Amino acid sequence: MTDETATSPAPSRRSLLAVGGAGLALGAAAAGGAVALTRDGGDDMQPAAESGGAVPFHGAHQAGIATPVQDRLHFAAFDVKTDDREAFVQLLKDWTKAAALMTEGRAVGEGAYGGLAEAPPDDTGEALGLKPSRLTLTIGFGPSLFDTYGKAFGIADARPEALVELPKFPGDNLDKARSGGDLCVQACADDPQVAVHAIRNLARIGFGKVAIRWSQLGFGKTSSTTPDAQTPRNLMGFKDGTRNIAGTETDRLAQHVWADGPSWMAGGSYLVARRIRMNIETWDRTSLQEQEDVFGRDKGEGAPVGKAKERDEPFLKAMKPTAHVRLAHPDANHGATILRRGYSFTDGTDGLGRLDAGLFFLAYMKDVRKGFIPVQRNLATDALNEYIQHVGSAVFAVPPGVRDGKDWWGRGLFERKDG
Amino acid sequence: MTDETATSPAPSRRSLLAVGGAGLALGAAAAGGAVALTRDGGDDMQPAAESGGAVPFHGAHQAGIATPVQDRLHFAAFDVKTDDREAFVQLLKDWTKAAALMTEGRAVGEGAYGGLAEAPPDDTGEALGLKPSRLTLTIGFGPSLFDTYGKAFGIADARPEALVELPKFPGDNLDKARSGGDLCVQACADDPQVAVHAIRNLARIGFGKVAIRWSQLGFGKTSSTTPDAQTPRNLMGFKDGTRNIAGTETDRLAQHVWADGPSWMAGGSYLVARRIRMNIETWDRTSLQEQEDVFGRDKGEGAPVGKAKERDEPFLKAMKPTAHVRLAHPDANHGATILRRGYSFTDGTDGLGRLDAGLFFLAYMKDVRKGFIPVQRNLATDALNEYIQHVGSAVFAVPPGVRDGKDWWGRGLFERKDG
Repeated sequence: MTDETATSPAPSRRSLLAVGGAGLALGAAAAGGAVALTRDGGDDMQPAAESGGAVPFHGAHQAGIATPVQDRLHFAAFDVKTDDREAFVQLLKDWTKAAALMTEGRAVGEGAYGGLAEAPPDDTGEALGLKPSRLTLTIGFGPSLFDTYGKAFGIADARPEALVELPKFPGDNLDKARSGGDLCVQACADDPQVAVHAIRNLARIGFGKVAIRWSQLGFGKTSSTTPDAQTPRNLMGFKDGTRNIAGTETDRLAQHVWADGPSWMAGGSYLVARRIRMNIETWDRTSLQEQEDVFGRDKGEGAPVGKAKERDEPFLKAMKPTAHVRLAHPDANHGATILRRGYSFTDGTDGLGRLDAGLFFLAYMKDVRKGFIPVQRNLATDALNEYIQHVGSAVFAVPPGVRDGKDWWGRGLFERKDG
Repeated sequence: MTDETATSPAPSRRSLLAVGGAGLALGAAAAGGAVALTRDGGDDMQPAAESGGAVPFHGAHQAGIATPVQDRLHFAAFDVKTDDREAFVQLLKDWTKAAALMTEGRAVGEGAYGGLAEAPPDDTGEALGLKPSRLTLTIGFGPSLFDTYGKAFGIADARPEALVELPKFPGDNLDKARSGGDLCVQACADDPQVAVHAIRNLARIGFGKVAIRWSQLGFGKTSSTTPDAQTPRNLMGFKDGTRNIAGTETDRLAQHVWADGPSWMAGGSYLVARRIRMNIETWDRTSLQEQEDVFGRDKGEGAPVGKAKERDEPFLKAMKPTAHVRLAHPDANHGATILRRGYSFTDGTDGLGRLDAGLFFLAYMKDVRKGFIPVQRNLATDALNEYIQHVGSAVFAVPPGVRDGKDWWGRGLFERKDG
């Protein structure tokens, strides 16, 4: 690939379609050319797609974990509606094919509107003309998939030990309708219409085999995985994710994020999703001093207590014992470190006129037992708990990446030789 | 203003704050320099703010109507919680001041975090460091403001005749909790965090005087007011708003959008908001032929039936008598024309696993009785009705623009000399 093709503008879905069937091969080549491909077999480096460009779908790890965080999220948890192993495997293959097309900025199905007028279109159409927008689609398998469908699907003995149900934490107020799920798909993109289109088309393809259990839109990333990027602010107005694992930190990713086993999970990861509602109105009437004490950082710059700059090393003992940063810090958790990839949400207003808003927390880790669980336990005395409430929860095993056009999501699980 | 300043990059909120009090004047100048100011007294031309830049708040008309449509929406309807005229007028003044600051990309309150540590911050902070993002804030007054608070506020005889409650239309399935409102604020911006921040801070400032009744986020504009811009697609996958009124069409705006009277409303407009849920799953299983018959346009190009190009003049009689385009066309409605400014929404999933998604329809018009009502009545036989349902509804009188730093939202209504 020459530098010329690597910096060519991203093709729009419109241009791919306009040239019809012959344009598909051309389109694929152009889409490949629109990104700087820096990911290969064992490399954790993520592609630095230009704005609007495509992130490669194939690789050792699924995209959407170490990938630089996109601006928008549509996350969906699915329930399985079939106990037919063959039908479910076919769905995973169909989904994989559709996901590869959509992440390239192409319509689902070949020819989009070249099909029969008597049949529903292969693609629902609302992303036609939009750019790939760095769309990533990341699949995960919930504990219930193994428990409920383990026997039917022949995967009962394959549930990873690291995939544990989360215990009940103090203060949890979980809504079952916003928790759990046999499967999940995380769609991230810089254009929300592209993310929504992707989830909708996967749901459409899965009709009769899976159904959406719950879904969540996120409009503002709250953590960055790009070193030196401006740290985003959460809806409490504080910078969030200052010390997050960067997508370029190969060693930290290997140590804290990529799963080791079982063998079908090697190169995968474990995902914890928590819908955290913020008591916005209460927070907004809290003094600046209290807000800064709660976090252990100052609000404007984001510097740890007693320090001048956001990225200065925190001195934990200078903070109140209940400060969020102090309790969540790896030094307070035997080194436990997770990769955060959460988004702010605002889902309108509740019945009392309060904004239904907060943080949809997403975190990837090597082992749920050594990542989220000990950290969340340590947050039992977090001063922040007065202003937040966990109202949704789910955990998923996120398999490794799809290697090439013949591989498919979960193939390692469904065609494994060992346990 | 030189061309140099007109094309200078938009200042970020961070840079404005970093220089402290002295930077405020500088910031205002820089913000003004970031946009090409083409709006003056009687001119309908809207500013062509660069991406991320500021749209001028002051002018003959409120921004956010003829302004080129931004990418994201946060719309809030408020109930009034006080019958103290003075308190309510003070709120309108406070809101106006805050709105002017936020649309310039500045924090609410002077100095943001320069205040007392013992007091809540003047600004909630989540937009610090973000650009103005073409934020517009547009206020409207609902019929209930005049009916319920008319006597207390001295505005009982000022309700415009054109501000009528909408009749019940066939197929309406309105949720009271998503309908009505004494006031509304439409926040549009290219960055959703900027729009959400604005509504939240207005709600915070209004605490005790107003409370949010309902709110709606929109993630994808479905109509353009910019000639020659790519026509956006709605969630049914069709181009929407092909023949919309453009912000540059001074004559059509004067004829169809800007209100004539009463005198306090001259230069204002009337807004109809409808939350239109789409039966996405049913639609997605409908044949392409049926979809195209329903709209009266082809799905890929958006051309009217029998024509080749999207912008070709529709030949209505070539369409089925129930085609949406045919029934909504001005020629089928005695010339009735409205300016559409709606957004797609996806609010997660309903209890049956279906996407709660559709179109949040916003339209501005000179007179509700001659705009939305006759058109919506004519749509009673619309084939589209099988796939959609109106579930929320509201109507507002949108006063003219705030002239300058001494003027405030609604001053014409509260300090009027005549009825």
